[in-house]
Amino acid sequence: MTNYHSVGVIGGGSWGTTLAHLSGINNNKTLLWMRNGIDEINTHHRNSKYTKDYVISEQVKATNSLEEVAENCEIIIVAIPSHSFRQIAYKLGNYVKADQILLSASKGLEQKTRSRMTTILVEETCCKKIGVIAGPNLFEEILKGHPSATVVSSRFNEVIVKTVKAFASKNFRVYGNNDVLGSELGGAMKNIVAIAAGMIDGLDFGNNSKSLLVTRGISEMCRIGDRLGTNNSTFTGLTGVGDTMVTCACNLSRNYRVGYHLAKGKSLNYICENIVSVAEGINTCKVIHEFALEVGVELPIIRGVYEIVHENKDIMEVITSLMQRKSLWE
Amino acid sequence: MTNYHSVGVIGGGSWGTTLAHLSGINNNKTLLWMRNGIDEINTHHRNSKYTKDYVISEQVKATNSLEEVAENCEIIIVAIPSHSFRQIAYKLGNYVKADQILLSASKGLEQKTRSRMTTILVEETCCKKIGVIAGPNLFEEILKGHPSATVVSSRFNEVIVKTVKAFASKNFRVYGNNDVLGSELGGAMKNIVAIAAGMIDGLDFGNNSKSLLVTRGISEMCRIGDRLGTNNSTFTGLTGVGDTMVTCACNLSRNYRVGYHLAKGKSLNYICENIVSVAEGINTCKVIHEFALEVGVELPIIRGVYEIVHENKDIMEVITSLMQRKSLWE
Repeated sequence: MTNYHSVGVIGGGSWGTTLAHLSGINNNKTLLWMRNGIDEINTHHRNSKYTKDYVISEQVKATNSLEEVAENCEIIIVAIPSHSFRQIAYKLGNYVKADQILLSASKGLEQKTRSRMTTILVEETCCKKIGVIAGPNLFEEILKGHPSATVVSSRFNEVIVKTVKAFASKNFRVYGNNDVLGSELGGAMKNIVAIAAGMIDGLDFGNNSKSLLVTRGISEMCRIGDRLGTNNSTFTGLTGVGDTMVTCACNLSRNYRVGYHLAKGKSLNYICENIVSVAEGINTCKVIHEFALEVGVELPIIRGVYEIVHENKDIMEVITSLMQRKSLWE
Repeated sequence: MTNYHSVGVIGGGSWGTTLAHLSGINNNKTLLWMRNGIDEINTHHRNSKYTKDYVISEQVKATNSLEEVAENCEIIIVAIPSHSFRQIAYKLGNYVKADQILLSASKGLEQKTRSRMTTILVEETCCKKIGVIAGPNLFEEILKGHPSATVVSSRFNEVIVKTVKAFASKNFRVYGNNDVLGSELGGAMKNIVAIAAGMIDGLDFGNNSKSLLVTRGISEMCRIGDRLGTNNSTFTGLTGVGDTMVTCACNLSRNYRVGYHLAKGKSLNYICENIVSVAEGINTCKVIHEFALEVGVELPIIRGVYEIVHENKDIMEVITSLMQRKSLWE
């Protein structure tokens, strides 16, 4: 059994655990940093709180020591919600060396600074070989071995090539590109579209409405991406259209569930306290909406979600005004 | 009540009837040409064979005379399956005048000639103001009044402006562009992707696989579009991503059902005789595959669908070979 790489994953939620498993089944020596559930992984190869009864590769060893991960792993993936990302990155920064590869697997933006997660990795560590993993990845389908794919983006081709090698397998394709900004924005902004998609399903509007929403949502991603210098083809790929489609398709997404229950008349407070724990889109729509206002980019859907979520505006009123916008041809 | 336009729709299937209804509720005098069901429309404002129990606007009058449509309508939309399209266009050509607006609402390609439907309209009539209507339009959701949108494409802005005016209403947005080729190709090629999506659901692979398929399918549309001179942004809009999403989402699409039942082990013959009547994607995948071979464009998904549908190749074998294609980074 060849030990191709040593891979570390920071964060033992469902996605972090799944990434560790994908690395493990490729025979990479894999460390998974987590706070709780270490024994269950190391003894029973399961993380029942986050990945149900699925068996996690025996190549995955859990640890609560960031230092151990930093000392042993060539590739380290940080899969931590955006609100704790900087704190963990800062701690990890005490141990990593400049030549290590650091990837973000988180799909959010930092509220206070509007920073992307890779920016935080740059700021809090000495590493330069930084990238992001994003794509349409429902963990359960991956753990079932159904065909899936993801994207790794980095300025450095070495990061892409090594990450592809570490994670690609017969049921999991890994595509690469150099558009870090585009992949991170796509991953973050699709959560806003997912909130809106949940609303549409909560209102029972159906597939035409949802595809209209997703298509126009992608066009808003392209508009803000244009302003920031991304490659538009990134948004039409797996980290844009692909990820948005998956997140909007079903109630497996927390962001979708936020929208769904808002449409059913539940308050945001109630939803956050009783239904979903973390839904990145709630914060991301505020960050993107405020940024778009500042730079003068018009994003009607994102503005609408912002108004519903943060200003308690009536959903039907927002939808009516979206449908009645004048088009170029009227 | 203002009579804005006179609109004719050729073809009383579910989409033709729905288009006539959309025109009628905008107070356009509307003629719907059909073979059967004329009395039911004119007496009961219903077309129960194709649009269930939904009430069709009273502004819609059904007729079996192409001449009557040609003599009375400024805008004429042909909503006829591709295999009968030329024959009807030829007959219509006897009556129309050069200044009339002709639109295709059909999403297929002619098998023998590989022609698009608008090309047939050009060849079989004296009209020049030609265009296409395409988009993510499940008729039932439109008849329920749920928010939906479509696209009209034409080289002539007059065609776009008049069509938008005739059809846009508070629950139905109509976008316009000049990329006739892109809209027609998107509309035709999404049926191939829908066959593949049906297979994925037939195999129970889930959302990751389907979004991977759709995303890579869009990329194949862009590749063939590039070769033919379309605007890539057309494929990322409603007539590409949007229409593909809707068609792949659910078993309301005939093309999806073809793929679904193939994956369940039914033969193509059995499916065509017992489950779906017309599924444009069966023919379209042959046309596009053969064209792509001739011009040297690689379209692995479309080739795969062609091999399964027309060469009886094993589905799992095709999927495995798609998943194992070398990427740029390996």
